[in-house]
Amino acid sequence: MENNPLPMTADFCFTLPAWVQQLTADTGRRKFLGDEEKMEWVLELGRYNIEDGGGPFAAAVFSLDHGTLVAAGVNRVMASNCSVLHAEICAIMLAQQQLGSYTLAPEPGEESPKGYELVTSTEPCAMCLGAIPWAGIKRLVCGARDADARAIGFDEGDKPERWTEKLEQRSIAVQCDVCRIEATALLKEYLNSNGKIYNG
Amino acid sequence: MENNPLPMTADFCFTLPAWVQQLTADTGRRKFLGDEEKMEWVLELGRYNIEDGGGPFAAAVFSLDHGTLVAAGVNRVMASNCSVLHAEICAIMLAQQQLGSYTLAPEPGEESPKGYELVTSTEPCAMCLGAIPWAGIKRLVCGARDADARAIGFDEGDKPERWTEKLEQRSIAVQCDVCRIEATALLKEYLNSNGKIYNG
Repeated sequence: MENNPLPMTADFCFTLPAWVQQLTADTGRRKFLGDEEKMEWVLELGRYNIEDGGGPFAAAVFSLDHGTLVAAGVNRVMASNCSVLHAEICAIMLAQQQLGSYTLAPEPGEESPKGYELVTSTEPCAMCLGAIPWAGIKRLVCGARDADARAIGFDEGDKPERWTEKLEQRSIAVQCDVCRIEATALLKEYLNSNGKIYNG
Repeated sequence: MENNPLPMTADFCFTLPAWVQQLTADTGRRKFLGDEEKMEWVLELGRYNIEDGGGPFAAAVFSLDHGTLVAAGVNRVMASNCSVLHAEICAIMLAQQQLGSYTLAPEPGEESPKGYELVTSTEPCAMCLGAIPWAGIKRLVCGARDADARAIGFDEGDKPERWTEKLEQRSIAVQCDVCRIEATALLKEYLNSNGKIYNG
């Protein structure tokens, strides 16, 4: 800072890569059937993100009523110089922007009365886990486990004990191990491509 | 979504209010002396944010070497329709943008070799706590306690047991209760002004 008298900035923007925009546009109002279909779509995003030089993490928000995609996210930590931009955070921010509300919690009379679910390629780190109740997410679907991310050197942070039960106490349903083998293969693919472990 | 065929958005921006920009510009390269001075500045931000219709939370990142402000943040959850935009998250995102890096951790030869500290009007919620190690913050300074935020109806989330020790195990120093009385008065001011408890 001493030698860098830039004016302090007061705005921040991030953009998902063009290929995410293309994939979400192509997906349109497709009705996804079941957790595996959604997870496979999310893992495809993660695969593209590795090819694009990003982290091996992807996520998306879907309507629980319609099975449709609301917003996608990929890890943009390195690309956007921002440690907050994990895939889940990007998906949450974009879904709320899409719906014009700071909460995705369903309200009476809304057209998605069951609310929204977050599908993530790896169990959320401490930050993303903390973000889920504030976001109004009603269901969380995870691919790889914390231990799978740790196995390639990523740190998941200090999560509370029995975090899935804590979410459930907040009426947020949790489904783990969906396509875990494929999700873990994605993490290993990143490791084998010499991807940077930026918080290890 | 069914009746709302908006194209899916792939970018997200937020801007701090003009008065934050003014206050940070006025502050410039002032050298803050000690935790209380920094906290008083942060609490002033929080006071303005309440007047502006925002949540009673503010934060800022300072250089540990120079005692200078790097970036400020206020709660923009309602204003930006985004549950992620707690004061700490805004300050971290803007500080990293300011420094052009996804980590604030000091590197050899840098001009702020001791790194950066986050000063926050209230102890961080579960999400912001999880964000701190990823951000590369080396010291955390807190005003009001979790219990003080809960006392006016805010939810701090499920934080790990002994979270201050867990940060310290990651070489992040923690100083709590700085101007706690004034910081708690700010929370009560929000309650008395009928401020919305948006995640209660």
